[in-house]
Amino acid sequence: MSVLPVGATIGILGGGQLGRMLSEAAARLGFDTVILSPERDGPAGRVSAAQIEAGYSDEAALRELAERCDIITYEFENVPVESAAFLARIGAEVRPGGKSLEVSQDRLVEKAFLRDHGIGTADFAAIDGPGEIAEPLQVFGGQGILKTRRDGYDGKGQVRVASGDDFEAAHKALAGAPAILEALVPFEREVSVIVARGEGGATVSFDVPRNEHVNGILKRSSVPSGLSPEIERAACAAGEKLAEALGHIGVLSLEFFVLEDGTLLANEFAPRVHNSGHWTPEACETGQFEQHIRAIAGWPLGLVTRFHNVEMHNLLGEEALQPPRSYGPHDVVTLYGKRDAKPGRKMGHVVTRLRG
Amino acid sequence: MSVLPVGATIGILGGGQLGRMLSEAAARLGFDTVILSPERDGPAGRVSAAQIEAGYSDEAALRELAERCDIITYEFENVPVESAAFLARIGAEVRPGGKSLEVSQDRLVEKAFLRDHGIGTADFAAIDGPGEIAEPLQVFGGQGILKTRRDGYDGKGQVRVASGDDFEAAHKALAGAPAILEALVPFEREVSVIVARGEGGATVSFDVPRNEHVNGILKRSSVPSGLSPEIERAACAAGEKLAEALGHIGVLSLEFFVLEDGTLLANEFAPRVHNSGHWTPEACETGQFEQHIRAIAGWPLGLVTRFHNVEMHNLLGEEALQPPRSYGPHDVVTLYGKRDAKPGRKMGHVVTRLRG
Repeated sequence: MSVLPVGATIGILGGGQLGRMLSEAAARLGFDTVILSPERDGPAGRVSAAQIEAGYSDEAALRELAERCDIITYEFENVPVESAAFLARIGAEVRPGGKSLEVSQDRLVEKAFLRDHGIGTADFAAIDGPGEIAEPLQVFGGQGILKTRRDGYDGKGQVRVASGDDFEAAHKALAGAPAILEALVPFEREVSVIVARGEGGATVSFDVPRNEHVNGILKRSSVPSGLSPEIERAACAAGEKLAEALGHIGVLSLEFFVLEDGTLLANEFAPRVHNSGHWTPEACETGQFEQHIRAIAGWPLGLVTRFHNVEMHNLLGEEALQPPRSYGPHDVVTLYGKRDAKPGRKMGHVVTRLRG
Repeated sequence: MSVLPVGATIGILGGGQLGRMLSEAAARLGFDTVILSPERDGPAGRVSAAQIEAGYSDEAALRELAERCDIITYEFENVPVESAAFLARIGAEVRPGGKSLEVSQDRLVEKAFLRDHGIGTADFAAIDGPGEIAEPLQVFGGQGILKTRRDGYDGKGQVRVASGDDFEAAHKALAGAPAILEALVPFEREVSVIVARGEGGATVSFDVPRNEHVNGILKRSSVPSGLSPEIERAACAAGEKLAEALGHIGVLSLEFFVLEDGTLLANEFAPRVHNSGHWTPEACETGQFEQHIRAIAGWPLGLVTRFHNVEMHNLLGEEALQPPRSYGPHDVVTLYGKRDAKPGRKMGHVVTRLRG
């Protein structure tokens, strides 16, 4: 593909906050966006030129999207691989490609792919039934996390297990779905890398944020991460290697556990912009949303020089309904326009630029 | 009015690039926007929740806008005063109020208002016919600019005159409209102030940009302006006094000629965000678009600390169609999504963050 012409239309599969912020970044570069999402009145549709309200497997809707758009991207990794394949078959350009979706949708495939490319992970084992848990758990030191292979997010679809537990119950808690058992990692902190890969194969990584989760949901990211430059460079190199191995075009993120001795163990990746990169538009020469649009549109990638130290924290549930006066003077507030402030739901985020 | 609740809807009269950037800023704070504009497929409608396609005097359309929105603002100063009055009459909250429109729409009223509030301007005289030009022109030193009292922008609706010219022809060039003759000012540079005034009456001004026009159209704004801090403070004080005198809520801009000796002569003001403030989102803690939304929504005004020296230049006509690779590495590009790159048309702008 050559450079997407000014005024072209970008289709986005998914209508949540990531789609909203991608849509805004696209508009800024002069592109229109069309959202395909089953959700009526979602965050992205309300800031886009149009929305097609349909499921991700609806072939008529996918065909309409392809007809209206010059290129198609996605804002979340659970778009069916078949839908991406269908779009490719009818001649649509989908970026990133199907490989990134395919690998990231299945934790077992994902972990194996990471290891195959020399990126370390915690130990893991495939679990197809409750009888398969005890043995690897023993090997992993008697503690682990059982996760569904597919469809988990924000701590959903996972349960901790220890030797002697009722494995029948644990497996039932995941509705008996195909699972993966992961060794519990005694990490000292969590970090992530946000990498962009452009059309010519050039890659660039943002500075590494340190991430703190509460109940499996990202609560805060802060930059700098406090890691040594060597470890940060190693994390970025792993992310860039991954992007290359996938033939990824666009932004992807890779999360790591960091052990006391500095060892990096990759946890999971997302083939898209990431919550832990929400500070980039306020702190860097180019933000992750614009970077993704630049990559898929065939623009040169933007510089990622960071101007500020920052903290980003998520606004969950009713935190987003606080009075404006309660924000600090250096807080940049972004709200997603979600109608229903359910507990734990990501409703917005705040980026605070710090001295230094 | 109390604070606009999260998820409220803001109506915007006007659908151009200023509406587009206001809409984006509103969305970021969690508000929906509805655009009222006669232009189908304009820049703002394509990033907003909805557009009502109608003229600004269409009472049914204004009524619909009032019903769908919690508050209404405008992106340009030529909204009919009667429309703002109609909206107020049917109970809609319009911010800024009608006074700001009324004064800014007529160059004669505007200049008189500025002078009445102690803000210096070039000499001027009302001109209702070609026979009224010679005498004041003589007083002004034999050189002046004849401008229509209403509806001029980007250098349109004005013509230079000198003693001995054919005044019949000059007045005819303005279609014989009621006019104002302004003394030609030997300015050394042009600057502007962008002021926000919040609900409680607090005002805050961005750093002062220096502006360069070509053929009456803003070509470049740069910050710092090169003026002394004292002169900059005087310019800001004038802008703040004006905002107060108008009972303005929101952002306004006031343009000045600066003479060799540092004298400031106000040229004109716009009761809205301004092209010469397009660098603020990239350079300051809060940008002018968010600042306007904060003001009209009853949020506390944001800080305007400037992080970078910057240059902003407009992309006119086909300049917006240049290949992405031709932009510099520190250029932040914003395109307005206009369909037709007519010569001289404002199609986008570039903000360059400079060292220092």
